[in-house]
Amino acid sequence: MSTYNLQDTISLLARTPAALDALLRELPETWVRGNEGENTWSPFEVVGHLIHGERTDWMPRAKIILQFGVSRTFESFDRWGHLRETQGKSVADLLDEFAQLRTENLSELRALNLKPEDLKLRGQHPALGVVTLSQLLATWAAHDLTHLHQISRVMAHQYRESVGPWRRYLGVLQCAGHSSSS
Amino acid sequence: MSTYNLQDTISLLARTPAALDALLRELPETWVRGNEGENTWSPFEVVGHLIHGERTDWMPRAKIILQFGVSRTFESFDRWGHLRETQGKSVADLLDEFAQLRTENLSELRALNLKPEDLKLRGQHPALGVVTLSQLLATWAAHDLTHLHQISRVMAHQYRESVGPWRRYLGVLQCAGHSSSS
Repeated sequence: MSTYNLQDTISLLARTPAALDALLRELPETWVRGNEGENTWSPFEVVGHLIHGERTDWMPRAKIILQFGVSRTFESFDRWGHLRETQGKSVADLLDEFAQLRTENLSELRALNLKPEDLKLRGQHPALGVVTLSQLLATWAAHDLTHLHQISRVMAHQYRESVGPWRRYLGVLQCAGHSSSS
Repeated sequence: MSTYNLQDTISLLARTPAALDALLRELPETWVRGNEGENTWSPFEVVGHLIHGERTDWMPRAKIILQFGVSRTFESFDRWGHLRETQGKSVADLLDEFAQLRTENLSELRALNLKPEDLKLRGQHPALGVVTLSQLLATWAAHDLTHLHQISRVMAHQYRESVGPWRRYLGVLQCAGHSSSS
């Protein structure tokens, strides 16, 4: 963990909403609402999932670590919580909401003014056991990337047939995904 | 191919430079210059590769199809052509250059005013054999996505250790890549 740099993490976290906005806003439905089949997520649903994480996962867990350490186990994250977040909304609504929540959460994170020794503080994950604040914050950033990876794969899936013989050259079309939701 | 929609393709192609810009401009070197090990690409090099494609691959091949059909085989694409594109440049330079070339190429594509019958025109790929203009244009878009997929994976790789036990939950960290360059 010696190379862990909180500023690098914040730099990435601050950019994800704008990157998704540039990619998805006003993009045709083919791309935004297409998924990879039954029980898989479209980019629209992925943005809902990111919103749900902003509300219930990252900063709430960081605050539990800072206040309670390992004595209070994190709430389990609801991987289907995006269903409530997305109901009746457009992708533009979701992009706005994600950007706003992320900005608020990063303001709160910066205000904590975390020191290297704080990053070593420990919390209790309901399935993974003991984790550190540093690991939680690194995972917040890597989680953005796992879903950017997923969105690009789900979108490419829509052109699986259209690309014809080029299919074999496109790495993204060889990627079968690595879990039910990423 | 009946569902192929040229407007969907152009919509995506038009957004990729801004999405990469939002993600990568002024991002710390950890993210922009980190790769996955020897003979793998960093996000910086991927943007160079996309620039090289704008110059030598997509529109030049479309024009060969329109002018010569299958009678003139496409030039082979130089997958290491980005080495010339990136020399002495910053990531900001590359992002500017990619955006400008993409804008020019899409203007040229729109000016062709392609009709459904044009999309069926055929060309000769040096390795894949006969391909259609429709397949070429769909591949242009899917190629953007394969490299967005790659960039997100290469960036996540930089945090492989930092995320600690969360590693098993992050799909992108299970992705081994699917070719030497995507």
